Amino acid sequence: MNPLLKDIRRNPLLWLLVFVPVVLVAAKLKPDSHTLLFVLSVLAIVPLTMLLARATESVAEKTGDSVGGLLSATLGNLAELVIALAALRAGQYALVKASIAGPIVTNTLFILGASFLLGGLKHHVQEFNRVGARVQAALLFLATVALLIPSLIAHADLTPGTEFGHKLSAGLALLLIVAYGLGMLFSLKTHKEYFKSAEQGEEGEKPWPMGLALAMLASVTVLVALASEIFVESVQKAAETFGMSPAFVGFVIVSLVGGASAMPTAFSGARKNRLDLSVGIALGSAAQIALFVAPVLVLLSYVIGPAPMDLQFWPGAVVMILVSTLTAALVTNSGRSAWFVGALLILVYLTFAVTLYLLPPRVA
Amino acid sequence: MNPLLKDIRRNPLLWLLVFVPVVLVAAKLKPDSHTLLFVLSVLAIVPLTMLLARATESVAEKTGDSVGGLLSATLGNLAELVIALAALRAGQYALVKASIAGPIVTNTLFILGASFLLGGLKHHVQEFNRVGARVQAALLFLATVALLIPSLIAHADLTPGTEFGHKLSAGLALLLIVAYGLGMLFSLKTHKEYFKSAEQGEEGEKPWPMGLALAMLASVTVLVALASEIFVESVQKAAETFGMSPAFVGFVIVSLVGGASAMPTAFSGARKNRLDLSVGIALGSAAQIALFVAPVLVLLSYVIGPAPMDLQFWPGAVVMILVSTLTAALVTNSGRSAWFVGALLILVYLTFAVTLYLLPPRVA
Amino acid sequence: MNPLLKDIRRNPLLWLLVFVPVVLVAAKLKPDSHTLLFVLSVLAIVPLTMLLARATESVAEKTGDSVGGLLSATLGNLAELVIALAALRAGQYALVKASIAGPIVTNTLFILGASFLLGGLKHHVQEFNRVGARVQAALLFLATVALLIPSLIAHADLTPGTEFGHKLSAGLALLLIVAYGLGMLFSLKTHKEYFKSAEQGEEGEKPWPMGLALAMLASVTVLVALASEIFVESVQKAAETFGMSPAFVGFVIVSLVGGASAMPTAFSGARKNRLDLSVGIALGSAAQIALFVAPVLVLLSYVIGPAPMDLQFWPGAVVMILVSTLTAALVTNSGRSAWFVGALLILVYLTFAVTLYLLPPRVA
Repeated sequence: MNPLLKDIRRNPLLWLLVFVPVVLVAAKLKPDSHTLLFVLSVLAIVPLTMLLARATESVAEKTGDSVGGLLSATLGNLAELVIALAALRAGQYALVKASIAGPIVTNTLFILGASFLLGGLKHHVQEFNRVGARVQAALLFLATVALLIPSLIAHADLTPGTEFGHKLSAGLALLLIVAYGLGMLFSLKTHKEYFKSAEQGEEGEKPWPMGLALAMLASVTVLVALASEIFVESVQKAAETFGMSPAFVGFVIVSLVGGASAMPTAFSGARKNRLDLSVGIALGSAAQIALFVAPVLVLLSYVIGPAPMDLQFWPGAVVMILVSTLTAALVTNSGRSAWFVGALLILVYLTFAVTLYLLPPRVA
Repeated sequence: MNPLLKDIRRNPLLWLLVFVPVVLVAAKLKPDSHTLLFVLSVLAIVPLTMLLARATESVAEKTGDSVGGLLSATLGNLAELVIALAALRAGQYALVKASIAGPIVTNTLFILGASFLLGGLKHHVQEFNRVGARVQAALLFLATVALLIPSLIAHADLTPGTEFGHKLSAGLALLLIVAYGLGMLFSLKTHKEYFKSAEQGEEGEKPWPMGLALAMLASVTVLVALASEIFVESVQKAAETFGMSPAFVGFVIVSLVGGASAMPTAFSGARKNRLDLSVGIALGSAAQIALFVAPVLVLLSYVIGPAPMDLQFWPGAVVMILVSTLTAALVTNSGRSAWFVGALLILVYLTFAVTLYLLPPRVA
Repeated sequence: MNPLLKDIRRNPLLWLLVFVPVVLVAAKLKPDSHTLLFVLSVLAIVPLTMLLARATESVAEKTGDSVGGLLSATLGNLAELVIALAALRAGQYALVKASIAGPIVTNTLFILGASFLLGGLKHHVQEFNRVGARVQAALLFLATVALLIPSLIAHADLTPGTEFGHKLSAGLALLLIVAYGLGMLFSLKTHKEYFKSAEQGEEGEKPWPMGLALAMLASVTVLVALASEIFVESVQKAAETFGMSPAFVGFVIVSLVGGASAMPTAFSGARKNRLDLSVGIALGSAAQIALFVAPVLVLLSYVIGPAPMDLQFWPGAVVMILVSTLTAALVTNSGRSAWFVGALLILVYLTFAVTLYLLPPRVA
């Protein structure tokens, strides 16, 4: 366990791992202290997602370019997927949908914006690979449009939850997964040169040995699943205590927790003037939620959910997703960035967060 | 008739011309076999639109640059116009509107996407004239916005079919036709260098002699009109038989039939690494529907329709048109393309088609 | 007063200053001739806004780069602010909101479009600083999105005028003003090289001496305030007489009057092939309305208005603002312009104007 301990010594955020046993014990002893369990589960999930990211990278590096890339891309949003699965099993479909919409918005506005801001505070103007960013922004826009078709076209005319909505969502989920497969082929095989930079990890970090990596991948996934279950159970009640709307919790809290592992790499890339890396992480991760996590959740809802889930999003979520991806396209278009662009991206994210925070509970 | 026969020998799609007499006879003998008449009329219209395109090009080439360009641009969507006129005379305004919205979506998503995909399967990365494509994409976006103003601004507040809607649509139609005239001046006279590539026809095809071309133009237009009438009469009932919603028929079937003649040139251009040609055809044709076909139909509805037609589109159509033209702008923006971009454009088109197919009949 | 008289001799539009005393006297003598007072107040406000712009520039030039830039930027939309304040005090919140939305649309479509058209009629193709334009277009898009969040997210779900709407609008106003301050820091201090051209005034005009400039700034502001009050009182009744909807008056008339002072500089810049200047004025002014004028009005409504004002816009206004800023982003993206692009921008503006003109009075 030497490499693992070395990581923990180097990264103070991993010291939060101490909350993993704490939350598991607390859930047994005080199953009704929702606020406490909510805080503890968040504190436990954050370091676990970092270990998950580290294990995934290590496996990916050992297995060679293509298979490794496939693994790394597919497991990259494992944390979000596991949290959403816990909500799916509990039948909390509003939370599941928020955990699809939230990370798309958080990646394209907050992670991208904070990268631009942090990088821009150090470098006057930063240039990044325009072609790669444009291809990724176009892919992300098309992916989110495909994801939102049922909400965009059908919402005005139909009440959600009808048979039409379910058929459409299931059909669409299959199309999205096909597109995801083609996208893997594109980014890992035929045109990998446009996506290269996004796959480089933190410098100076040696990959774990294969045995440790695989063992960690399995055991940490189980731990995330356990902590997520506690999180999902406690979040509703805790939100009431804190005076937060469920929409705020789903959109902001869940997606910041789920995305925590990607932030250090994205931000340190920006500081090192390697914005390609930050843009690749932010846009790639958002596209993956739309093309992979969302359809997988729809299809799994037929197996493990209490009822099939459709892809009808609340109109406010549709607006936020479209604004985010359109903004990402406009902002990465020039291949240049300065601190104020990042500040404005964060401003838009803050306005979303403030709106969701103030939203009366019955909406969304 | 030698050049015509030579064309027919070379292009197997023209062998479908045999269905022209068949459908005319069938309509007399079996006026109630709607499904049969629908299939036959589609099979007859496809080769006719190709002859129409060929005749237009031949006339255009003989009459010199400016007049020829004007003719070619104006008659380029003659097939769509004739089909829509048949629907207009029958008072089927939902079908007329679908035959305005459908070709815009089909051109910008399907024809552009298939060009990118087919070209990208042969060439690793294709570059095309970015300035020309951007100007055309901006024009298309502005043209569609102008077309959609009544639906966008007034829809939320007003019931369609009011006097306000009619006044607005008529005034707008006049503005659009003025814009179309200015656009002709721009693309054929003052700035023709940006549009040159889009007007080159298939290599190796000799233009028909003037006499033949004019005679074909007149007679084929009549044949298209006759076949369109049968098509419009049979389409509703046939759709029911096939379980297709009227929206699907109008959007997808009509626009694929009407656009069939443009596809061979667009696709072979892409295979020959001349994406400028494909982009020009796809975006130019879509812009022309918005700036010319749509306002002409509104104005003609006062003369030949049972009642004036307005420009209020069904919300789903508005979304699809805006998404298509915005996507075209984002995607052509980089002046570069690869197969996956085409695949994603087709994916979005497929999601539209699936949604329209599943849509319950009473909507749209 | 020599420099002032020299200006008046040179600029025939300033001869309209004669209407300032006329309208003040007329308002005393014939307080019920609304149509007359409306026309006179418009004729008086136009030259006053020009004097205001001239005084602001003169003060700015004397006080040195940074302070001057700050003054010039903050006072640049003083006329719009004073007119809106008159409407705010009268409790005409629909007019206040129209005087926020209208100038954004007028700047990005009409002033930008007319600049492109006038410049394009003289120069075949005009190039302008793409990077600066893109940064400004992205800022403008983000600023308007932030401004429209309450309308976009909350509109579908909530009736306007609720406590939620007011809290949200006030919180948002604070965020917007912070963003405005950061934007000043960005454009005047850390990255002023991207905004330089937009601050150059008309060539050959000598700045006024400081004393005259300050005196004019104070006295003209008072005169604009007086004329605006007459304008706001008469506009409603006059609109009825002319058969104009209130939405048309707010959007089109008020914003053309308020923006009149910026037009000569923008248009003559375009004619002199310095499109950077025109783009800077159009986009910068629009961004300032969103980031500064709008939040200041919301916050002042708590002090001087009869009731707090929120930022819920009528859906048609939301569409027009978003279409305008998106169009500006697409159109300035290529860094190239020709006359037809300008013509199409004006076409879209005209379609907005026609729609608003025809709109039945009870809407908006």
